Amino acid sequence: MVLAVGIMSGTSLDGIDTALVEITGVLEKTRVKLVDFATKPYPKEILNQLHHALEAESVTVQQVSSLNFQLALSYAAVVKELCEQNQLTTGELAYVASHGQTLFHQPETLGDFPPSTLQLGDAGVLAQLLQCTVVSNFREADMAVGGQGAPIVPFADFYCYQGNKDRILQNIGGIGNLTWIKKGGSPADVVAFDTGPGNMVINELTRHFYDEAYDHDGKHAANGQVLPELVNHWLSLPYFAQPYPKTTGRELFGKTFVAKIIGENFEIAPDDLIASATMLTAKSITQACAQLTTEPCELIIAGGGAYNPVMMAMIRQTVDANFIVKTQEDLGFSSDAKEAIAMVILAQHTLQKIPNNVPSATGARKPVVLGRVTWA
Amino acid sequence: MVLAVGIMSGTSLDGIDTALVEITGVLEKTRVKLVDFATKPYPKEILNQLHHALEAESVTVQQVSSLNFQLALSYAAVVKELCEQNQLTTGELAYVASHGQTLFHQPETLGDFPPSTLQLGDAGVLAQLLQCTVVSNFREADMAVGGQGAPIVPFADFYCYQGNKDRILQNIGGIGNLTWIKKGGSPADVVAFDTGPGNMVINELTRHFYDEAYDHDGKHAANGQVLPELVNHWLSLPYFAQPYPKTTGRELFGKTFVAKIIGENFEIAPDDLIASATMLTAKSITQACAQLTTEPCELIIAGGGAYNPVMMAMIRQTVDANFIVKTQEDLGFSSDAKEAIAMVILAQHTLQKIPNNVPSATGARKPVVLGRVTWA
Repeated sequence: MVLAVGIMSGTSLDGIDTALVEITGVLEKTRVKLVDFATKPYPKEILNQLHHALEAESVTVQQVSSLNFQLALSYAAVVKELCEQNQLTTGELAYVASHGQTLFHQPETLGDFPPSTLQLGDAGVLAQLLQCTVVSNFREADMAVGGQGAPIVPFADFYCYQGNKDRILQNIGGIGNLTWIKKGGSPADVVAFDTGPGNMVINELTRHFYDEAYDHDGKHAANGQVLPELVNHWLSLPYFAQPYPKTTGRELFGKTFVAKIIGENFEIAPDDLIASATMLTAKSITQACAQLTTEPCELIIAGGGAYNPVMMAMIRQTVDANFIVKTQEDLGFSSDAKEAIAMVILAQHTLQKIPNNVPSATGARKPVVLGRVTWA
Repeated sequence: MVLAVGIMSGTSLDGIDTALVEITGVLEKTRVKLVDFATKPYPKEILNQLHHALEAESVTVQQVSSLNFQLALSYAAVVKELCEQNQLTTGELAYVASHGQTLFHQPETLGDFPPSTLQLGDAGVLAQLLQCTVVSNFREADMAVGGQGAPIVPFADFYCYQGNKDRILQNIGGIGNLTWIKKGGSPADVVAFDTGPGNMVINELTRHFYDEAYDHDGKHAANGQVLPELVNHWLSLPYFAQPYPKTTGRELFGKTFVAKIIGENFEIAPDDLIASATMLTAKSITQACAQLTTEPCELIIAGGGAYNPVMMAMIRQTVDANFIVKTQEDLGFSSDAKEAIAMVILAQHTLQKIPNNVPSATGARKPVVLGRVTWA
């Protein structure tokens, strides 16, 4: 049993999640216990730089290079704080598993550009600041063997959730993604893909209309009215009909998409747009579930969306009868901590050189070892 | 004894150097034998993208991310070819040590931007394409502990060249850098710094005036006349008087600098400018040497500049009498291969978690392990 910290900062930019865990074993012998968890916002200045890098037409290479180093400083500060609160020094950690901040992710060839992905938050800087081994860069190897480099959480999900019933794990972060773990299945049976937007469209709308980072407790959605025609129009986007495995991101459902929504619907009340965007996420999830199985199945919701009661109600309202909807918390796990814990589980396998992608989820031609190791 | 390949592609963009070596041991037991060496130009399309990324005001994050992946493809192709020519598969290599292509390097804080460095050519992609362990990213850890992230070759130089006489190893790539290895000294006694431009200014001039990538055999320099006032004017730049450790790059002696030279001296014949730029490199080296030691010392020239007979003549002509000037080839080593071999020596220590920076050369606060490990 060793202590390790997982760091996740998702596309929604809502902060840096850090999970302190006890972990032992690999594959079916993997055992993980969450010791502590914290989410800290990015420092304002870093957040501004990230928004610029993600949204501007172009950046300077100095900005990219500098962000790579500065993000590592931000991560290190959050990990140190978590360790201090648990009377630990970072040097006592066996390792830190860091996802990094995705600056760009393009799973398919687009024009002259082959698939590629770019996560920042330099592992060398992080390892030195923490005086501890860092495992990072969990997407590139999968893409090098034809995979989409995403999703990467299903590997961890399989070893945490495989059991005596079918389970669909739905994470609602910036993007929504699901993992279907079949009763009695093997890792090769895992189905996983991005369902579409998670909170990304909603957050962009609350930022635009209210200067609020997200729809706290779903209050705007609750105050608005879902416009079914609008929701169905959005659901007619080709992405939702595309067969899995598939991944999406800010490129499809980011600022450009939301600017278009706002421009096309200026006569609609902001809260109606937010309610409709909430329903878009809910229906994109429940439609995807309905297409997967008609057998009894647990649908377990995690991520920020699990804390939006309006979204949870919409999921329960639109899901087929064979599903029992739960939240991650109902199972005794922290919803927020799930992805950060998954990074630790991936890293535990990286360090043992055990392949830890799920080709059935990413579309990769073969299993590969995700991640790379930087010693302090 | 294992087989390994080192990959170096310098700031001059004159190609991808790959060295196939046999290596055994670490520290004073390090023994290296060069088996084969090749330099291949970048594919034209990649070269164009690199020039754009290095010289344009700004880039898109897609361009940066894509270059990171595409450079790995270029590196993999060159390594495969080298292995094939030696009846090897890349899977038989113990590891590949890849420097990556520097897109940005800022060793000091500049305005709002803290020091950072960015090398592209993704290790995860490379490891998968070659089916072999990759060690990469040799600069970040040093910068995280206050170093300049450069030079990184002195560590290898020390274990290859330490002996019964003082030696100064001068590499003339895009930038010129020297390493002073004292007779009977330890790694902590190593002095190393960038002397100033190597071939960078010359190459930019031949590209501008003749559409030639470099001054082949120094023919333009030989055809021109050195203008001492011009050379002395350039040598009055603050960089040359700055105390070591110090590093420089494209930011100071790149396209902007050369555009200024051309703009200010439009009445001067191109070959006179090239001859003067060649003397600038020669004198910046011999002045630096003169300030270091008046004891008997070997000055060993490596890198592309060693093949420019005019530059070699200028060095011999301006160097103090206590120096014996040799080329790397005189010592039975390939000049071109030196940096690629150095990457292998660094990686050999990374894999054993042995610190491999030289704080006296980089200015780092302490020894750290440079490099990170990606398994296939």
